[in-house]
Amino acid sequence: MDYYEEAIKLARTYRGKISIKPKMKIKKQRDFSLLYTPGVAAVSKAIKEKGERFLTYKWNSIAIVTDGTRVLGLGNIGPDAAMPVMEGKALLFKHLGGVDAIPITLSVTDKEKIVEAVKAIAPSFSGINLEDIESPKAFEILEILQKELNIPVWHDDNQGTAAAALAALINALKFVGKKPEEVKIVFIGAGTANISTYRLFKAYDVKPGNTIFVDTKGVLFRGRADENELSKSNPYKYSIMQETNSENISTIEDAVKGADVIIGASSPGAIKKEYIKSMNSKPIVFALANPEPEITRKEALKAGAAIYCSGRSDMPNQVNNSLIFPGLFRGVLDVQASKITDSLAIAAATELAKYAEQKGLDKDYIIPKMSEEEVYFRIAAAVGVEAQRSGIASTNKSYDELYEEAKEIILKERR
Amino acid sequence: MDYYEEAIKLARTYRGKISIKPKMKIKKQRDFSLLYTPGVAAVSKAIKEKGERFLTYKWNSIAIVTDGTRVLGLGNIGPDAAMPVMEGKALLFKHLGGVDAIPITLSVTDKEKIVEAVKAIAPSFSGINLEDIESPKAFEILEILQKELNIPVWHDDNQGTAAAALAALINALKFVGKKPEEVKIVFIGAGTANISTYRLFKAYDVKPGNTIFVDTKGVLFRGRADENELSKSNPYKYSIMQETNSENISTIEDAVKGADVIIGASSPGAIKKEYIKSMNSKPIVFALANPEPEITRKEALKAGAAIYCSGRSDMPNQVNNSLIFPGLFRGVLDVQASKITDSLAIAAATELAKYAEQKGLDKDYIIPKMSEEEVYFRIAAAVGVEAQRSGIASTNKSYDELYEEAKEIILKERR
Repeated sequence: MDYYEEAIKLARTYRGKISIKPKMKIKKQRDFSLLYTPGVAAVSKAIKEKGERFLTYKWNSIAIVTDGTRVLGLGNIGPDAAMPVMEGKALLFKHLGGVDAIPITLSVTDKEKIVEAVKAIAPSFSGINLEDIESPKAFEILEILQKELNIPVWHDDNQGTAAAALAALINALKFVGKKPEEVKIVFIGAGTANISTYRLFKAYDVKPGNTIFVDTKGVLFRGRADENELSKSNPYKYSIMQETNSENISTIEDAVKGADVIIGASSPGAIKKEYIKSMNSKPIVFALANPEPEITRKEALKAGAAIYCSGRSDMPNQVNNSLIFPGLFRGVLDVQASKITDSLAIAAATELAKYAEQKGLDKDYIIPKMSEEEVYFRIAAAVGVEAQRSGIASTNKSYDELYEEAKEIILKERR
Repeated sequence: MDYYEEAIKLARTYRGKISIKPKMKIKKQRDFSLLYTPGVAAVSKAIKEKGERFLTYKWNSIAIVTDGTRVLGLGNIGPDAAMPVMEGKALLFKHLGGVDAIPITLSVTDKEKIVEAVKAIAPSFSGINLEDIESPKAFEILEILQKELNIPVWHDDNQGTAAAALAALINALKFVGKKPEEVKIVFIGAGTANISTYRLFKAYDVKPGNTIFVDTKGVLFRGRADENELSKSNPYKYSIMQETNSENISTIEDAVKGADVIIGASSPGAIKKEYIKSMNSKPIVFALANPEPEITRKEALKAGAAIYCSGRSDMPNQVNNSLIFPGLFRGVLDVQASKITDSLAIAAATELAKYAEQKGLDKDYIIPKMSEEEVYFRIAAAVGVEAQRSGIASTNKSYDELYEEAKEIILKERR
C-alpha cells in the first residue's frame, strides 16, 4: 500500500516522469543558425528530395496512444487520468528500449475517430503503440491501422502479453518434453489478452482444434445458446467458437481433463485445483490475472503443476509484456520496418525463450527476468533480422550489427 | 551556404535534435513498481478525483502542430520534410523556455480535419503551438481552436512576430517621442504576419483609421475593384479594407507620404527609398521579410530612417518571434492558463520593450537580443501575472515568484 503514497510523492516532486532533452548544447548564435533557420532548410530538403530517414528524432519516436477507456485495473478513467500510465510506459520504453515514446491521450473514444486521429498524427512517428483501449474496439482499431499505415502498429496489452506467453509456452513445453503441435490447451478467459495469445500460438504451431476457450458463460462450443448473437456482437470470439474445440466439448470439467496447458487471463479463483489434478502429466499452468492470479503458485504446485507462470514480479516465471515491447520496438526502429507482423512477434518470443534456454531451463526459470538486460538487445537484433528477411525493413544489417547497435542505444540512455 | 552542409552533417551525426529523457533513474525492481504499476494507479486516481495538475509531464508539455503547407521559405513541403523545422522549434522551446514541446506533423491539410486532429490529441498537452500552416486557413484554425479548447492555442508565425513587432514599435515610438494612438502606420504586405501585427497594434493603442495596408495589388481602399470578391475570399483582409485608411487613400505614394512607421512583411524591394524620404520626421522602418528585407539597412538609413528593424540576426534590432514564444509559454504553463489572449501577448511585448528601455534605448538597441536570457524569465513572469489578473490562470503567485520559478526551470534545462 505504501507504494501508492510514495508514487504520489514522487509525482509531486518530479512533476512527471519524462521530459524533452536537446541532443546538443546551444552556446552561440551560430548554433541557432545551424539547428534552426537557415540551416534546418537543408535537412528538410534532404528529406523531401532523398527520403533520408535518420535526420530527425522521428526515426526513434513512437506514440503511445490511449483513449483512457480501459486503464490498468482502473477501467474507463478518461484521457487525463490515463496520462500517468502512458508516461510510465514512456519511461519503460526509454529505459528498457532506448525508444522516444510520446504519450498521446485522446479526447475521442469512438472507433472511427480514434483511427482518424492516429492517421492524422502518424507522420510524426515511426511507430504506434496502442494502450489501454477497451475491447473489442481495440482489435478493430489495430487491424485498421495496421492495414492503412505504413509504420508498425502494436497493441501492447494484447500482443505484448501474447508474445511473452508464447516465449513461456515454448520453454515450458521444452522443459516437460512436449510439442506445441500436439498439446491440448485450455484458455480460461476469452478477453483480448487470451484471444491475442491464442492467435499468436496458432501462428506458431499450436493447432486450433486442440484448444478450448472458456468465458464467463462456460466453454465455447458450437451450438451454445449465444452462438448467433456472438456472430454479430463479437466476431472475434465467434470465429474462435467455430475453429477451436474440435471435439465440441461443452463443460469445463471435460475441457481441462487431459489438457497439457491451462492459460488463465481471467480473475482470481477461475482455475481450480481440481482442474490441475485432472490434467495430463506434467501440467503447465499460466495464471496471468493481475495482480491476483487465478490460482496461487502454492496451490497450483500442490495440485501437481509442473510449471507455474504468473504476472507477478515477486514470483518466478513472470510473464510480462515488458520483456517484449522494448526490444521489439528497438528492433523495428533500427531497421525502420514498415509494420509489425506475427513473424516479428514470434521472432521476439523465440529469442526470449532461447535466452532462458541457453542459461539453463528450470521449473522456476522458464522465462527471463526484466533485469536481464541482454534480453532486450537480443530481441531487437532478432526482430530486426526477421523484418529484413521478410522484406519490410529499409536496412540490411547482420544480427551482430543490430545487437551492438541496440545495446549501444539502450545503454547510452541509462548512463 | 556552408550552414547547409554543416546542418546536414549535424543531423546525420545526432539523428535529430531532441529525445525523451527520464526524470529519474531506474535502478531496481521497486522503482518500476513506483513509477509504473502498481504505484502509477495512485497518481491516476489523484488526477481523476482531485484534478491535480502537476503530477505528470503534461503540465509542461505542448504540441507544435503543422500540416507542412507553408514551411519557412520552402512552401508546401508536407509533414515529413517539415519535421526538422518542428524539431528545431522544439529545441528552442526547451533551451529558451524550458518547455517540453512535441512535434506533431499532420497527414491532413483540410481545415476541419486539422481542427479535429488537434482536438482529439488536446488532452495530451497543456498548450498548442500552430506552426507553418498556410493562410488564411491558419487564422480560422486558430480561432476555432481558441474557442473550443480550454488550453492556450498560439500561432507563432503570426502572433509571435506580431508581439515582437509590438515591442519594437513601443520602444521605437518612445525613442522618437511619438505616441501609438497618434502615429500613421503603413503596412506593406497583407499576409498573415502583417494582419496579425495590425490586430495586436490595434489591441494596443494604434487607431485603425491611422493605418493603411498595401498588398500585391496596391493600397487597400474601399471601392477597389476586388472589394466584393475579397468579402468572400478573404474576410480578414476585407474587414481591414473597411476599417483602416480613414482618408481612403488609393496610391502607395500618398499612403507613405507623412507616415510615421512603415512595417514591411513582403519581399525584397517592396520598400523604396523614396517612400522613406516622403515620410514624417524621424521615420521608423521595419523591414521584416526574411532572409532578404524589403530594403537594406544601409539604404534605409541613407534615406533618412531614424529607426530600422529587420528579421536578420546579423544586424541590430532583430524583430524575432523567438524573443516572445519561449517566455510566453513558460508563463502560461507556470500558471496553467486556460488560453492565450491579446492581453497576454501585449504583456509579453511590453515587458520585452521595458527590458530594453531599462537597459537604455538607442537607435541600434530598440529591442533586446535573443542572448539576453533575463528577457525570458521576465516575459514569463509578466505573462503569468497578467493571466492571473484576467482570471484565466489556476495559480496565485507574485511576479517575483513567477520570475524565480521560470528562471530555475529554464536554467536547469541548460545545465
